[in-house]
Amino acid sequence: MKAELISVSSSLLTGVSVNDNAAFLARELSAMGVSLTQVVMIHDDSEKLKAAVKTAEAEAELIILTGGLGPDDNDIVKTTVSDYLNKPLVLDEATQNRIITYHKNSDLVMPKNNQLQALTLLDSVPLENVTGLALGMFYQSDSHSYLLLPGPTDELIPMFNEHAKPLLIEKRLKKHHFSDHVIRLFGLTMAQAQHDLGDLLGQQDDGFIQLYPDGLEIEVHLATHHKEKKKANQQLESLKEKVTDRVADHIIGHGKTDLPHLVRELLIDQDKQITGAESLTGGAFLSRLSSLFEAGSIFEGGIVTYSSRVKNELLGVSKQTIKKYGVVSAECAFEMAEKALAKFDADIAVSLTGAAGPSSLEGEIPGTVWIGIAQKNKKTFAKIFHFGYKRNLNRDYSVWSAFNLVRQVLLEEEIADIVHKS
Amino acid sequence: MKAELISVSSSLLTGVSVNDNAAFLARELSAMGVSLTQVVMIHDDSEKLKAAVKTAEAEAELIILTGGLGPDDNDIVKTTVSDYLNKPLVLDEATQNRIITYHKNSDLVMPKNNQLQALTLLDSVPLENVTGLALGMFYQSDSHSYLLLPGPTDELIPMFNEHAKPLLIEKRLKKHHFSDHVIRLFGLTMAQAQHDLGDLLGQQDDGFIQLYPDGLEIEVHLATHHKEKKKANQQLESLKEKVTDRVADHIIGHGKTDLPHLVRELLIDQDKQITGAESLTGGAFLSRLSSLFEAGSIFEGGIVTYSSRVKNELLGVSKQTIKKYGVVSAECAFEMAEKALAKFDADIAVSLTGAAGPSSLEGEIPGTVWIGIAQKNKKTFAKIFHFGYKRNLNRDYSVWSAFNLVRQVLLEEEIADIVHKS
Repeated sequence: MKAELISVSSSLLTGVSVNDNAAFLARELSAMGVSLTQVVMIHDDSEKLKAAVKTAEAEAELIILTGGLGPDDNDIVKTTVSDYLNKPLVLDEATQNRIITYHKNSDLVMPKNNQLQALTLLDSVPLENVTGLALGMFYQSDSHSYLLLPGPTDELIPMFNEHAKPLLIEKRLKKHHFSDHVIRLFGLTMAQAQHDLGDLLGQQDDGFIQLYPDGLEIEVHLATHHKEKKKANQQLESLKEKVTDRVADHIIGHGKTDLPHLVRELLIDQDKQITGAESLTGGAFLSRLSSLFEAGSIFEGGIVTYSSRVKNELLGVSKQTIKKYGVVSAECAFEMAEKALAKFDADIAVSLTGAAGPSSLEGEIPGTVWIGIAQKNKKTFAKIFHFGYKRNLNRDYSVWSAFNLVRQVLLEEEIADIVHKS
Repeated sequence: MKAELISVSSSLLTGVSVNDNAAFLARELSAMGVSLTQVVMIHDDSEKLKAAVKTAEAEAELIILTGGLGPDDNDIVKTTVSDYLNKPLVLDEATQNRIITYHKNSDLVMPKNNQLQALTLLDSVPLENVTGLALGMFYQSDSHSYLLLPGPTDELIPMFNEHAKPLLIEKRLKKHHFSDHVIRLFGLTMAQAQHDLGDLLGQQDDGFIQLYPDGLEIEVHLATHHKEKKKANQQLESLKEKVTDRVADHIIGHGKTDLPHLVRELLIDQDKQITGAESLTGGAFLSRLSSLFEAGSIFEGGIVTYSSRVKNELLGVSKQTIKKYGVVSAECAFEMAEKALAKFDADIAVSLTGAAGPSSLEGEIPGTVWIGIAQKNKKTFAKIFHFGYKRNLNRDYSVWSAFNLVRQVLLEEEIADIVHKS
């Protein structure tokens, strides 16, 4: 099936907003085997919208419209589509009641035209908006399907996932069962992943595989569909195996759980507390920890020791170590981690020290970073990394590599190329 | 003048990339008084591209194409446009030499088709690519202008700013001088800023004013053009005054310098060192400081005291203070800041303590945050903030508000609603 997306919003054409909806829908449609042929962004203009729908109908069976479902004068999508398809708008009572209740429970006075958001095309399936007020809808004519979604991304995503996607699968992919899965990779670039998995990518006979960057991690999206649920699941398992065979060393998890969230789960499961002593990353590792839900159950604090003086006076790294080995060294990483472990009375302590850049430090080129791990009753170790020349990318890679080391430690995985404290 | 943008890239239609170029160009064109009528994203397909250019020509005088200028088989833009306009491609020797030199100076072997990137349309103005290899170009027919730009955003932005924008101003806005300026706001929402400046926004007779969010700051973009440079500048000054009259209390700076960078400049100018003690933000303030270029000249370190125990044992906040006033209190903020100032031997210390959420803390609702400031030989003070219910947004607001307080202190501005330590 082919689809075309029409994004209706003047704010996209003045650059006030970025079209994140297009990227989200493109991914979802690709995984479902729907080919997105074109995206058009137009102003809030009825005549332009009609022309765009007409053009899209010539090419695609599924027409997706985003934006323009609100109560304002420039929200022209519903009335325009109603006019174009010659289908009147009718009131969806459940939504009308939601809108009235929402305003009763808040200090806001309900503008009279707010109930326009409860209107839907006759014979369409209304799509509930759990994070906003404007109703979405799905309408099928003899030849085409029309999906109308709200513009705000935080309304569009849940509406698509919870209502539109199942409908599309049921109505358009007809009785096909749809199975999907995400494998998470870390420690390789997009180019490397594309090289390793290249011939498997895209829509193939046995399913769909695609790579998407998610910060420093890479998501491998897998999807299959088949008339029989069992077959769809079998094919999915086979795709998982194919991918795992190629990139096993880089798999750090599955689904939506990124490294910090995974580490949080492991720490909670093992009832362990973590701390950190940071030099080049200056608090970025601790900040990420503390951003996690219920962070207080996994850590009590940590220290940022950017200068050598503070490493020595406030953390207790010996002057001799700094003088003899420098701060970009395994020895400094060992001591930072061990002192932090003791000071903050944690079960595991991470230290980060190195040259963030853009200049070299102690003769070490930018991107040279030592990460140390100290644990109660276990041997302290450190690992060296060579990231690159970009200061803030080096800091990000350092933080993510630290989370990955903690993951490996908590899972008792063997870790390559580490130096143990003698 | 009207413009249409055609983004040529299959990766946009599979969701592998997001169309940031469209948002960037939309902003730039708006400020220049060029109206962007439509954006179309299409696959790397010659026939589709020709059709899209033809459609665009009917509506707009300026056709901008992004992507498809590289050396690969699917980079079809130059050959397609050459064919469509019946203009042969010719070699730009300067670019060819750049490509050869680039490969000589690296370990990379030059693929033979890499010199395709040095081809340009006959009679076009070639546009140098300072961050990549593919040449851009600007071509004018009797009726239309065609601007071909590379797909990677880090190549497109400098090429547009340094080459395409001056050309458009010269060739299309004819002898008009173009002046622009950015005013930075903080401490109000987009909705408030739109309310305060509403009637001034958009393209008016005397110039252009538009609001764009930049993280938690808001950029007010101002632009004027006039045949006489002096007049353009005068009009710009008048726009600045109009905006300043409305939102003076929220102006935190000008141009591209955001709050952390501004604070960095002020600290360096005043030869001062900063530190921080963080509870709810857990290192996010220190991390931001350490991300700045040459951070070592403005700070040596700081401490993350997430739990009450660590606040007491490692920072030295008295148990009595915590017991009597709680950790979400001016008193706790005073002590955290003063202890950090002494420990890290800085000139100014910031403390952050409060309820990040989603749950309440000590009966204080999420988003209740005290920020304290201690300085050598000055009275310690703190200010209370009420942000909202979203945990990570509360943390971000806290960090940015801390930078704003430091800015106000360093500029010796009067700060409203603060509590001094008695």
